[in-house]
Amino acid sequence: MSVSMHAASIPVFQHMLTNLRHILEKGEAHAQARSIDPAVLLQDRLTPDMLPLVRQVLIACDAAKNGVARISGVPAPKFDDTEQTFAELRERIQKTLDYLATVPASAMDGTEEREITFPVGRDATRTMKAQAYLLTWVLPNFFFHVTTTYAILRHDGVELGKADYLVGAAR
Amino acid sequence: MSVSMHAASIPVFQHMLTNLRHILEKGEAHAQARSIDPAVLLQDRLTPDMLPLVRQVLIACDAAKNGVARISGVPAPKFDDTEQTFAELRERIQKTLDYLATVPASAMDGTEEREITFPVGRDATRTMKAQAYLLTWVLPNFFFHVTTTYAILRHDGVELGKADYLVGAAR
Repeated sequence: MSVSMHAASIPVFQHMLTNLRHILEKGEAHAQARSIDPAVLLQDRLTPDMLPLVRQVLIACDAAKNGVARISGVPAPKFDDTEQTFAELRERIQKTLDYLATVPASAMDGTEEREITFPVGRDATRTMKAQAYLLTWVLPNFFFHVTTTYAILRHDGVELGKADYLVGAAR
Repeated sequence: MSVSMHAASIPVFQHMLTNLRHILEKGEAHAQARSIDPAVLLQDRLTPDMLPLVRQVLIACDAAKNGVARISGVPAPKFDDTEQTFAELRERIQKTLDYLATVPASAMDGTEEREITFPVGRDATRTMKAQAYLLTWVLPNFFFHVTTTYAILRHDGVELGKADYLVGAAR
């Protein structure tokens, strides 16, 4: 008995992307209830040189999608990164979930020792074995952007609690 | 070949707690360089009803420590949660790392199906199998508090980048 590479990746991303969608829905409802222009939330950031909410969501999606694509070898769709509304972010998350659903467990499992080369910053690459890449790069990066999305909305007064992040709409 | 419960937990926590320590060291150096009372950073929060930085660090440590203790059955030390300085947070992280180092891989491995009952909020408990508990509860919760620590320091002007979070002092 042990954890498969599939179990440690795709269901985790599916679970947390669903919770991310739920968090964004609460943000959208908050904007609507207070007559706040949704763009105010979507373009907000925790500090001037951090990325705005909309980019946090795009990168969370890409962390999951590109991480799984690099490990599994199942090509991922490329997105244009033009999302500007809550509806478009929902669609982005759905497209990411749709891709993840196409990747069979068999394409992830047994890849632990596979060498994965991935971009770091604009000009560099790094190579790690798939297991280390998933556990110490892809997952931390993915959770970083989901949490930062949550943090921006909390900072903007959206009523969210830890259960929204951990359990999502299913609670 | 597959990912062991040990590989999916203890080395990930060790890696990220080391990066958390590095992030805090940058925060401490920032306070010193600008003659900021360290308590201003340690008691800062992203919004009034979120926990301050010092608590984010304590909870990150406890997420790792208590998660591993519940899964492995290796009793964890109980901490008094009295930390108020950067030095004390470093010590808290070190004590957590010391505990994690005592847990043999054999105590984690093979626990995937073990039923884990854990507290949720003040009065409730929840039961999940150890694999789901680790992947969809402990890890997301742990990363949440490490990222929020980073976010509070970034919000306070500490010069941190994603590499500090993902790679830490080793970069």
